Amino acid sequence: MKKLINAVDDILAESLAGFGAVHGDLVAVTLDPKLVARADAPVAGQVALVSGGGSGHEPLHAGFVGAGMLAAACPGEVFTSPTPDQMVAAAQAVDGGAGILFIVKNYAGDVMNFEMAAELLADMGIAVATVLTDDDVAVEASTHSQGRRGVAGTLVVEKIVGAAAQAGADLAACAALGGRVNAATGSMGLALTSCIVPAAGSATFVLGEDEIELGVGIHGEPGRERQALQPADALAETLLAAICTAKAIGRGDEVLLLVNGMGGTPLMELYLMQHAVSKLCAGRGIAIARSLVGNYCTSLEMQGCSITLTKLDAELIRLWDAPVHTAALRW
Amino acid sequence: MKKLINAVDDILAESLAGFGAVHGDLVAVTLDPKLVARADAPVAGQVALVSGGGSGHEPLHAGFVGAGMLAAACPGEVFTSPTPDQMVAAAQAVDGGAGILFIVKNYAGDVMNFEMAAELLADMGIAVATVLTDDDVAVEASTHSQGRRGVAGTLVVEKIVGAAAQAGADLAACAALGGRVNAATGSMGLALTSCIVPAAGSATFVLGEDEIELGVGIHGEPGRERQALQPADALAETLLAAICTAKAIGRGDEVLLLVNGMGGTPLMELYLMQHAVSKLCAGRGIAIARSLVGNYCTSLEMQGCSITLTKLDAELIRLWDAPVHTAALRW
Repeated sequence: MKKLINAVDDILAESLAGFGAVHGDLVAVTLDPKLVARADAPVAGQVALVSGGGSGHEPLHAGFVGAGMLAAACPGEVFTSPTPDQMVAAAQAVDGGAGILFIVKNYAGDVMNFEMAAELLADMGIAVATVLTDDDVAVEASTHSQGRRGVAGTLVVEKIVGAAAQAGADLAACAALGGRVNAATGSMGLALTSCIVPAAGSATFVLGEDEIELGVGIHGEPGRERQALQPADALAETLLAAICTAKAIGRGDEVLLLVNGMGGTPLMELYLMQHAVSKLCAGRGIAIARSLVGNYCTSLEMQGCSITLTKLDAELIRLWDAPVHTAALRW
Repeated sequence: MKKLINAVDDILAESLAGFGAVHGDLVAVTLDPKLVARADAPVAGQVALVSGGGSGHEPLHAGFVGAGMLAAACPGEVFTSPTPDQMVAAAQAVDGGAGILFIVKNYAGDVMNFEMAAELLADMGIAVATVLTDDDVAVEASTHSQGRRGVAGTLVVEKIVGAAAQAGADLAACAALGGRVNAATGSMGLALTSCIVPAAGSATFVLGEDEIELGVGIHGEPGRERQALQPADALAETLLAAICTAKAIGRGDEVLLLVNGMGGTPLMELYLMQHAVSKLCAGRGIAIARSLVGNYCTSLEMQGCSITLTKLDAELIRLWDAPVHTAALRW
């Protein structure tokens, strides 16, 4: 295992310390318990979005903390759920009196811990609602989840609901909007290589010289099948077709297209994939109204990508376009 | 070779097409000859910064085209200099009457081609000046350059001089400032893995299980030596010491710290390296006034990082802080 680290047990704390130092204008980082909160939190009267999950998916979620998106993020150890006490501390740090919206990727550990935190907060008199994201159309259930997994589409939920919260939407409206965006969003990924979880020290899975994992999860968990590498255009068609089928996206629809890198893929290839998907969307009569390309929901150094489509309407476009000021997304 | 591509010969055009579609609000992409220009170019009366070089280092340079930074970028094939006709076309597209400043990384092919373009433009009556960047302190000469190589520090030159140009500095002042920033900037990198150049199809170099290339160039060219992987703190000390020695940076100095990923390194590790360098700077009495962390000057999917320090003064801080609006840098 070759990584730029000191001791495996210190990776998260040392990385968070760097993140906090670099982005001190945007966030306040706490190391015990570990959480990243908006520097200006709490914002009185504003619903506070709190997300989190295992680390190793950066910039998700800490990179999305700031005005117009998340109020706080709780980072667990690499690919390990954060604990309820982190979530409670984060919620307390950012509670502006209008309630807390948990945005939770659908993995068993995350779901259980966020549920426990919600109960603890309810006992304290803090209103909590939860949006579960399950945008990964690759598999109906997985080694890590009951039902579909939450992957890159989570950031679309965070951005759009974050804009609504910033504009003053109440907790029920934010929760309903989050559910609506999640339902309108489908993702599917593929891996060219595995990642190495530091605590394990070796590759999570092994692919042949010419082999890819189609529908891979963001922890390297199995997808639909292994197959031979295909040209980018063919891979784009496979991913796009699966998403359009699962989410009933077709002629006349307007979409947000997110081409997400898994961490180790050159930006050139991601833009090339964007072009490949664009050509196919044109052929299907799908209009790409907005597009985002980059490494946003990663799996450490894994090579590969995912495609996410969100079916848009005028409200969702307006909220997507609303200003956002975070470490990883800004406009 | 596993990459998200179609034919090797089409990578650049297809990637640029995607880039242009995603960032159409910022840039205009031309495919014949290949160039990326500010969407609002030419800006009358403003010195136009034009950079370029081989592709595979994204977001450098196309990701830095926009208000407050580059007026245009000329992308060559992967790790191959662009041609003089690209540079001439780019200069003509963005010439606002105040002259063109070429910002050129010190590699033999780039230097030769930008010189030819400057001569052609001079014949057309367009004033051209050139800033050569050679911030890589690892080696005094290399397989690709006479003298030191230009690496990640190039983006510091582009940002600071871009701010001056945006504020109305004339061509001579921009060129002098560029030379001053370059002289104040030192970088050094290391590789954990090689990259694969698509046209070659196999790794540029091969490292042992526990081996790193210290001082690696951004094309995978050799650095100072191969050595066993060390903890991040020790690696940070080696890179920092080399830069501080070469650039006479020490107690009482204020610096910009750029921790740059080579493309395949997780963001967690880059922030961890930032923290490692920060601790060492504190010990040396060096104040980190500004910090930037991310994959900015990459070598395709290479794993590794580089550290860049620029010695700052009040003018350079003001110019660094000035607004910038590009695909890869925005504040």
